[in-house]
Amino acid sequence: MKKIKRIGILTGGGDCPGLNAVIRAVVHTATHKYGIEIFGIRDGYAGLINKQVQPMDRKEVSGILPRGGTILGTSNRDNPFKYPVAVENGKKVYGDVSDRVQKTVEYNELDALITVGGDGTQAIAHQLFTRCGIPVVGVPKTIDNDLDGTDVTFGFDTALSIATLSIDKLHSTAESHHRVMVIEVMGRYAGWIALEAGLAGGGDVILIPEIPFNMNRIVQKIHDRENDGKRFSLVVVAEGAKPEGGELVVARKVQDPNDPLRLGGVSQFVGNRIEDLTGIETRFTILGHVQRGGSPTAFDRILATRFGYHAVEAVMDQKFGYLVGLRGQDIVTTPIEEAIAVPRRVQPDSQIIKTAMALGTCFGI
Amino acid sequence: MKKIKRIGILTGGGDCPGLNAVIRAVVHTATHKYGIEIFGIRDGYAGLINKQVQPMDRKEVSGILPRGGTILGTSNRDNPFKYPVAVENGKKVYGDVSDRVQKTVEYNELDALITVGGDGTQAIAHQLFTRCGIPVVGVPKTIDNDLDGTDVTFGFDTALSIATLSIDKLHSTAESHHRVMVIEVMGRYAGWIALEAGLAGGGDVILIPEIPFNMNRIVQKIHDRENDGKRFSLVVVAEGAKPEGGELVVARKVQDPNDPLRLGGVSQFVGNRIEDLTGIETRFTILGHVQRGGSPTAFDRILATRFGYHAVEAVMDQKFGYLVGLRGQDIVTTPIEEAIAVPRRVQPDSQIIKTAMALGTCFGI
Amino acid sequence: MKKIKRIGILTGGGDCPGLNAVIRAVVHTATHKYGIEIFGIRDGYAGLINKQVQPMDRKEVSGILPRGGTILGTSNRDNPFKYPVAVENGKKVYGDVSDRVQKTVEYNELDALITVGGDGTQAIAHQLFTRCGIPVVGVPKTIDNDLDGTDVTFGFDTALSIATLSIDKLHSTAESHHRVMVIEVMGRYAGWIALEAGLAGGGDVILIPEIPFNMNRIVQKIHDRENDGKRFSLVVVAEGAKPEGGELVVARKVQDPNDPLRLGGVSQFVGNRIEDLTGIETRFTILGHVQRGGSPTAFDRILATRFGYHAVEAVMDQKFGYLVGLRGQDIVTTPIEEAIAVPRRVQPDSQIIKTAMALGTCFGI
Amino acid sequence: MKKIKRIGILTGGGDCPGLNAVIRAVVHTATHKYGIEIFGIRDGYAGLINKQVQPMDRKEVSGILPRGGTILGTSNRDNPFKYPVAVENGKKVYGDVSDRVQKTVEYNELDALITVGGDGTQAIAHQLFTRCGIPVVGVPKTIDNDLDGTDVTFGFDTALSIATLSIDKLHSTAESHHRVMVIEVMGRYAGWIALEAGLAGGGDVILIPEIPFNMNRIVQKIHDRENDGKRFSLVVVAEGAKPEGGELVVARKVQDPNDPLRLGGVSQFVGNRIEDLTGIETRFTILGHVQRGGSPTAFDRILATRFGYHAVEAVMDQKFGYLVGLRGQDIVTTPIEEAIAVPRRVQPDSQIIKTAMALGTCFGI
Repeated sequence: MKKIKRIGILTGGGDCPGLNAVIRAVVHTATHKYGIEIFGIRDGYAGLINKQVQPMDRKEVSGILPRGGTILGTSNRDNPFKYPVAVENGKKVYGDVSDRVQKTVEYNELDALITVGGDGTQAIAHQLFTRCGIPVVGVPKTIDNDLDGTDVTFGFDTALSIATLSIDKLHSTAESHHRVMVIEVMGRYAGWIALEAGLAGGGDVILIPEIPFNMNRIVQKIHDRENDGKRFSLVVVAEGAKPEGGELVVARKVQDPNDPLRLGGVSQFVGNRIEDLTGIETRFTILGHVQRGGSPTAFDRILATRFGYHAVEAVMDQKFGYLVGLRGQDIVTTPIEEAIAVPRRVQPDSQIIKTAMALGTCFGI
Repeated sequence: MKKIKRIGILTGGGDCPGLNAVIRAVVHTATHKYGIEIFGIRDGYAGLINKQVQPMDRKEVSGILPRGGTILGTSNRDNPFKYPVAVENGKKVYGDVSDRVQKTVEYNELDALITVGGDGTQAIAHQLFTRCGIPVVGVPKTIDNDLDGTDVTFGFDTALSIATLSIDKLHSTAESHHRVMVIEVMGRYAGWIALEAGLAGGGDVILIPEIPFNMNRIVQKIHDRENDGKRFSLVVVAEGAKPEGGELVVARKVQDPNDPLRLGGVSQFVGNRIEDLTGIETRFTILGHVQRGGSPTAFDRILATRFGYHAVEAVMDQKFGYLVGLRGQDIVTTPIEEAIAVPRRVQPDSQIIKTAMALGTCFGI
Repeated sequence: MKKIKRIGILTGGGDCPGLNAVIRAVVHTATHKYGIEIFGIRDGYAGLINKQVQPMDRKEVSGILPRGGTILGTSNRDNPFKYPVAVENGKKVYGDVSDRVQKTVEYNELDALITVGGDGTQAIAHQLFTRCGIPVVGVPKTIDNDLDGTDVTFGFDTALSIATLSIDKLHSTAESHHRVMVIEVMGRYAGWIALEAGLAGGGDVILIPEIPFNMNRIVQKIHDRENDGKRFSLVVVAEGAKPEGGELVVARKVQDPNDPLRLGGVSQFVGNRIEDLTGIETRFTILGHVQRGGSPTAFDRILATRFGYHAVEAVMDQKFGYLVGLRGQDIVTTPIEEAIAVPRRVQPDSQIIKTAMALGTCFGI
Repeated sequence: MKKIKRIGILTGGGDCPGLNAVIRAVVHTATHKYGIEIFGIRDGYAGLINKQVQPMDRKEVSGILPRGGTILGTSNRDNPFKYPVAVENGKKVYGDVSDRVQKTVEYNELDALITVGGDGTQAIAHQLFTRCGIPVVGVPKTIDNDLDGTDVTFGFDTALSIATLSIDKLHSTAESHHRVMVIEVMGRYAGWIALEAGLAGGGDVILIPEIPFNMNRIVQKIHDRENDGKRFSLVVVAEGAKPEGGELVVARKVQDPNDPLRLGGVSQFVGNRIEDLTGIETRFTILGHVQRGGSPTAFDRILATRFGYHAVEAVMDQKFGYLVGLRGQDIVTTPIEEAIAVPRRVQPDSQIIKTAMALGTCFGI
């Protein structure tokens, strides 16, 4: 086995609280435990393509543990296997520039890469490993918590906390005004944030992508609450929730003007329908990117730190092509390919859904 | 002078952190200092019209100091001088039901009313005082801080804090991703929240209703930052901000489908234009009702408590038709009529605007 | 099997964020899913001894999900098997009053008891089950996270968050002033809060009961940091940490005036020694009961809600003498006796300790 | 008048949230509005004595707005007029080294100094101005809010918020356990934090240095609450509060072993006495340095930013020997000498004390 002396690290995909904690743990472990060097790669795979690689020491990671974002920058569109290489007739032409990545790795004498990112980032890492022979170790990262290969990802607890505190704030307004408040949280394909924030915030209705909803059931729930003397209701919606037979509608994207849901995403659709069908004043809030920002919770800092440490351990053990992850109380490794094969979604018959239903939560079914 | 034995209290208009602190202070002062009775009126003026009045003791206000909302409920549409009295041809017919208010006051033997609310609530209070002879004392309340007659209203500091923390969170994402982030905060006619949260959060561009904006100046500012090596920018927009020569566009209302700004309020308009004009990826967030909710800050709890105490003092002094307010360090009283004559808006040549400009903040001019 | 119609619930031992979430989940599950009745017992076992039992409906648990404390009250000294029954010669005489507990259970026709509490509470529950035949199901609760039978207890995440945010705050002062800051957190017998908050807050030195510390190692670490250009250090101490060969010293108790550590607990001892041995200005903070209070984190609310639901399920399954708990992602049940046999303490050779050490954290060894 | 080209800035005295916001505003105003240079002086006056002065540009202040502490470092013991110059017989000998300060100012061609600090820092600034002719402008800074010449100082609102949230947390424990909780907050000579946090947190007893307390009155208040059905009480104590006829006792200092209050400051004294006199279980918490740390509130960031801007304006206007401050809504300047002549303490007959008393708060009198 080749001796490991220099490791590169990059962060890819959407911003996520805890990225800096991973970077700091990698640098500290490498420096303190192994006396080897860490090289920071700027803006995800873009830095490997464009040779933006710099040595990092402990000074650079000083004070970053409690900070959101990533000091390395990130990018969610730079795929070395499908990279814009020319413009023809006003259209981008894409090509494979993975040789540039290889050259950057060789030039900087990187003995391994730690790739911190979601399924997109890890799919590319896997290709770099299998097709180009670049030794990679993955660290899973997603706000949405929908990556298999780990029980939970860092960033999720922070997003969940922000969403829950926002629901708490809406509760007082809903109650004072006798209103229905609809809050849209992140989760395009998986409803973890909506489900758990809804449970933690006491949402009366929770709508997630995994369980297509029926407006009549939602209206029924609101009426039941009224009959019970509760003049307000709180609806938590994942951005990827969809009506039965309907399609996913995501806010904040260029929207088809003919799409009936286009105005403000699924939350506005649901809010408008509730107001129409019940006559109760309804307001909606789209929480948006505030869920991705700010200082990570203690839970996320610890998980991110553990991931960072174990990523270096996996590199030193030359366990390439693997992803670190949490199983129960322990950090384990799984082949990247296996970890990204199927997204981790909410199971409609899981314990936690049953719990929410037993308490009377309506899932629109 | 008639002896004061029973005081009614109501909260009107939009929800606002600190309402419960006012109610608690009124009840404690009345009970502890004067040994008189307080009667709580449900849902603003609706409770006076519909006879929903109940005696309150200290038990009912126990534990409410740190809570958002109002235990009395509120309503922002029930005007006794213009109240729906019938439906003719499917249309509501409005009439004057202020005699019902008088009867409720007489029936409950209320010697005075404390009306906690914004300009709408106080305008009605003033009419009840001048036209119906009901002895009122007003307590100013508005998230937007646009009431004259007081240096600052409770609720504003809480909204400001929530907006500032949200900007903090967006900063890390903006910085990691090299993006423009646009955040829309409350302020339909006055830009206080946008101005102060923008200053506190380090916003690069701040757009307020008092200063119509020019897109070119905003784009120039973003380019200047790029030239300065800053690959991200943060834009804070009051919901009532408008382009030069343009009209106010407010999100979350029924929107004219032909209105070019309709999709997501002014923040989406600004965000889309920036993306079009600069090519930089732009995201927008509409903070919405979370700004109105949750536990009031220490500042707001203290101000609300002081207002509550001085409202009782004003009643005991029979200073009716007056509004309590803060001037410098002191609580003072002003005639309601005077206090609501002109809204308190940001002056474009004020110290605080000059300060923001000296630091390089762009106001779109 | 006897049909379950009425369940009693009590909360015992120290205050812990999430207790109200358990109570709410129990009431909602019983009411909504099973249509059975819940009876609230006041102040832990004291309420069973003194017949303070009341039916609870959904109204009583409305709004309590985000609140700290317990609406049932608690008590940490009322053991029915060793209860003060008389005073002789100025001394309390203790006796077995478990028959009073039995009478209260019979009188209120309680078919089962849900006992929410730590090892003390569960040890009594186990005795009530085995010696008096009272059907009990336990819900584990401890800030300190030292209960076996569950991977984690609710309340811990909240305490951890508060401790971590406090460390964040001390960091800025330490750094600005070139000081050593010592912070003492809860954990009399187990160091989980100190370990995890130390890891999350970037503590340079972490002292826990499981690893007796050597002052020389601590001083060495501080000197190493100085040589590295870091003019401040942060020391996180569990209240039960002790020097090698020394005895546990707990602050905030009546203290032997001759005890050299008496002034302010172990944090003051450590702080004074550091100042003496290094000459660097040192300050200490004892975080105290703020760690136990306030609104539970989303994590704790969800865990507490799940425990509450599964406790009712265990009762309905007549799985008496068991404790609910979390294993990985699932709620499981364990015999109470087994769960409380040995406290769950930090293992000095565990992954998480190795992680902290790899990053350069000093444990005083 | 000499043209201003270079301004030095230093931060002195205890850490205080908002210092970085002042530094940032000074640098941005100087750079953006005037195109002049700012020089940062390390560790307060120590940097002037020891020639630690460096030019600062906008890069250095990027991102510091929301951060606690001071990037310049501080020192609270380095007085150039009384500086340790030698050691004789093991004792430090102090001398006047203000000539060294003058040399540093001249060498770096500083046309003015902005001194950010409390009364100690400003007293030295005043001497440097009057005795050495160094042109200074002061910016007031104190957590304790006891500086005259301004209605309020930055840092106070942050400390107040932290103290209030801590009281909120203790409330739930106090209520669940039927205890008296005593919390000691900062305020050695002025009781602003205790008074306002006590008012904001709903403290039942508030003890401040300006009103010596009588234990009997405190005990009476606790008994009154018991008779009223309230089984818990919350006592907020300023660290400088003292019994009638007693002396100030400050925790966390080297303590006379014969002093009966020595164990844990005035909070422990008060707590022990309450437990002795009432028999109710009592716990105390000393909040300590967490009050000084962490991210400043929006209010403090804005005030600090305004102070920074106006300090540069005062320099450009050559208004030396003055201190900036807030009066009502406006920033004003006052001669430093006048501003520090008498500390700003709580007036026992002020509006705010009357308000607290009207609500039933006990001040121990």
